[in-house]
Amino acid sequence: MTTVPPQLRPLLDQPLIAHLGTVRSDGAVQVNPMWFDFDGEHIRFTHTRARKKFANLAENPAMTIEILAPDNPYSYLELRGQLAEIVPDPEAEFYVELQRRYGVPNPAKSADAADRVILIMAIDRASGR
Amino acid sequence: MTTVPPQLRPLLDQPLIAHLGTVRSDGAVQVNPMWFDFDGEHIRFTHTRARKKFANLAENPAMTIEILAPDNPYSYLELRGQLAEIVPDPEAEFYVELQRRYGVPNPAKSADAADRVILIMAIDRASGR
Repeated sequence: MTTVPPQLRPLLDQPLIAHLGTVRSDGAVQVNPMWFDFDGEHIRFTHTRARKKFANLAENPAMTIEILAPDNPYSYLELRGQLAEIVPDPEAEFYVELQRRYGVPNPAKSADAADRVILIMAIDRASGR
Repeated sequence: MTTVPPQLRPLLDQPLIAHLGTVRSDGAVQVNPMWFDFDGEHIRFTHTRARKKFANLAENPAMTIEILAPDNPYSYLELRGQLAEIVPDPEAEFYVELQRRYGVPNPAKSADAADRVILIMAIDRASGR
């Protein structure tokens, strides 16, 4: 895996919004705000099988996130990579964990728990400033 | 052009950061923070011919922006579209205009003024929540 520039590494430890880019089947780009965490090697997202991004990634595993520094509008981290693995999360445990990370009061399972998955992103390139 | 959902329209009038997704020649997605403005029909960016995004868009005109609401982390606007036109900006006038919009003290021409262009994005689809 690529090394994240050390001065930008703190952006992965904070509960910031990642802007996730994927490619749609019609060739258009899709960009959505996402919760994430970083396990030291991979970026992880909570998601459900029912959504468009899931279909995009099943067809084209290219995925890239950009995270803006909260205290400096000129600083950001971009990580380009691939969907490496989809892990079922039928009890929505990871979803609850991310709610906790993002400060949601009273984290709870969602009605769509049965469809919940963890998207595991492998990092190919890191850039930013 | 597509109509922007009225409740999300104010996001285009504020000096917020747009997260711009483009597709690289290797098929990877690129996502970068960008200044923008909206002229009522098109999204406009200041850019230079020297940068990677310019090469991406010359090869594949698909471009999408996502703008997060500053006061509600669950609200965002996504605009998917195409590069419609590239307008030379050799005096960096539009660059200076955007500096003013984004509150930069003492807006000024850049050293790369000769390479400056305005990227004009046509909007095909608007979504968000």
